[in-house]
Amino acid sequence: MPSSADTAATELPTTLAGRRCLVLGGAGFLGRALCRALVAAEAEVTAFGRQSAAPAGLADAARWLGGAFDDPDAVARAVAGQEIVFHLIGPRAPAESNRDPAEDARQSILPTLGLLEAARAAGVGRIVFASSGGTVYAPDAAMPATETAPTEPITAYGIAKLAIEKYLALYHRLHGLDFVALRIANAYGPGQLPGTAQGVVATLLDRALRGLPAEIWGDGSVVRDFVHVDDVTRAFVAAAGYRGPVTVMNAGSGAGRSIRSVAEDAARLAGGAPQIRYRAGRPADMPVSVLDSALMRRETGWTPQVDWDEGLADTARWLKSARGAG
Amino acid sequence: MPSSADTAATELPTTLAGRRCLVLGGAGFLGRALCRALVAAEAEVTAFGRQSAAPAGLADAARWLGGAFDDPDAVARAVAGQEIVFHLIGPRAPAESNRDPAEDARQSILPTLGLLEAARAAGVGRIVFASSGGTVYAPDAAMPATETAPTEPITAYGIAKLAIEKYLALYHRLHGLDFVALRIANAYGPGQLPGTAQGVVATLLDRALRGLPAEIWGDGSVVRDFVHVDDVTRAFVAAAGYRGPVTVMNAGSGAGRSIRSVAEDAARLAGGAPQIRYRAGRPADMPVSVLDSALMRRETGWTPQVDWDEGLADTARWLKSARGAG
Repeated sequence: MPSSADTAATELPTTLAGRRCLVLGGAGFLGRALCRALVAAEAEVTAFGRQSAAPAGLADAARWLGGAFDDPDAVARAVAGQEIVFHLIGPRAPAESNRDPAEDARQSILPTLGLLEAARAAGVGRIVFASSGGTVYAPDAAMPATETAPTEPITAYGIAKLAIEKYLALYHRLHGLDFVALRIANAYGPGQLPGTAQGVVATLLDRALRGLPAEIWGDGSVVRDFVHVDDVTRAFVAAAGYRGPVTVMNAGSGAGRSIRSVAEDAARLAGGAPQIRYRAGRPADMPVSVLDSALMRRETGWTPQVDWDEGLADTARWLKSARGAG
Repeated sequence: MPSSADTAATELPTTLAGRRCLVLGGAGFLGRALCRALVAAEAEVTAFGRQSAAPAGLADAARWLGGAFDDPDAVARAVAGQEIVFHLIGPRAPAESNRDPAEDARQSILPTLGLLEAARAAGVGRIVFASSGGTVYAPDAAMPATETAPTEPITAYGIAKLAIEKYLALYHRLHGLDFVALRIANAYGPGQLPGTAQGVVATLLDRALRGLPAEIWGDGSVVRDFVHVDDVTRAFVAAAGYRGPVTVMNAGSGAGRSIRSVAEDAARLAGGAPQIRYRAGRPADMPVSVLDSALMRRETGWTPQVDWDEGLADTARWLKSARGAG
């Protein structure tokens, strides 16, 4: 589908100008950043989330729809008239999901199936799904993992992400509902709150900036692929405009960093000596998770652009300004 | 775990003698056959299903528990004190599941997660899960499919079976709950009712025996792997006693037969000329599905024993006797 003919061309990628885009999970860390990027690309943006009002900074640019993801009427209202639906709603952090896999499935698989029914009824053009590169692959898969690596999740969160990818493929096959699933690495950057289960970079950096010791689960040897929020946002935009046949693609930095090295980098940036307290490891942890994103680069031209030191520095700036504002 | 010391040895495999076995779906085609085999192996058998009373022929040998699979209390009562749980409850036929994937997930994934919680709370030793060799693999996978073939189901039924395998692996990892998932081919044989969605052999044979033309979806070129119910039962028993590390295994005949050839064989057995009526094909059909069961043979010694012509003949005898009795 071409973009609307009556939309003026700009220096920004014009693919999304005038396109009606829905961001499910629009108040989350990635959702807010994506909404801003879509607005900058002159898309008509609707953001959906369980909050009754738009988060600060989003109110002017995007229409806000508050509702529950497991409420079929709310979801039907949200998808009505949309061309591209970005599905970023996830129930819990991976490790937490293992406490109650049934509840995780009820919060992720079932409402997503409701979304797929609503999207097909509404004639949505494409769903871009935030899958999880860090949880769908087998813990013993060769790293960096390509999309053909064995998928043996060790969390209920990862099983649900994988099942949703399969249901997307089913709806594509049965009903022509188009989709791209991005298996995203560990996102970090400005806007991510410290103290959350998935925000390990923000948490370590925040403590370092406060002069507090890092607290690390296990021995800190766990290796992750940290990708900057701006790169993730660009990956969503690239996936929305992609015209090829591939439906499942990794989006990561390709670099593996141990949690310990992140703590050390955070301390160095804060100007102090690294202090680390170790705690008993969580059983759900993959020892190493790094993504090979060559397929995404080949298919869409997307490639991560934010250098780690740069990304860490602008995250630190944001954390300081957010603290100042709070 | 060895079998109870106070159980007398017999000529039958003694592995299950005295063991407390629960068959979920005990009134179904495979469930009834499995209950009989377990009783013959001198196991203490409880059968569970939604029917309020045991099906004919099962009442004397196995304890019957009626209840809903999505009722946590009923499932908790059923698994209490059990050593081996055979999970044969599935919601619908593959093609039907695509009409309402959410309903399929609610009937399969969610109650199975309830079962896993109940089984871990009750200290069940092993779950043997009836997965589906005919629906989990990608339609373009190389056939006969091995267990490492890509898993890209084209039915909601297959997605749910695959997700359940992953949840079983998760419970094994998190809680030590032991399991074997058997990816079973298309089962046929005595006890399978004609006219059901999955009973294509029974249906074609029944019509041939009545002198009626076969009715086939598509052009009859669809190829399936038909495995006799006695072989499936032996596979369940082998999986229950298996001591090795493999958790997911195919169980099929290894022979591919087109639906058209099955109709021809059925007509020949009935003593008539094949008459076939063709109907518009169903989109959910895999063109070819045949299983490579070498892993199962290597790990457990199981191998299919019932010859096709023999199996077809005893299915015909059963259909005639069932009709006579009806």
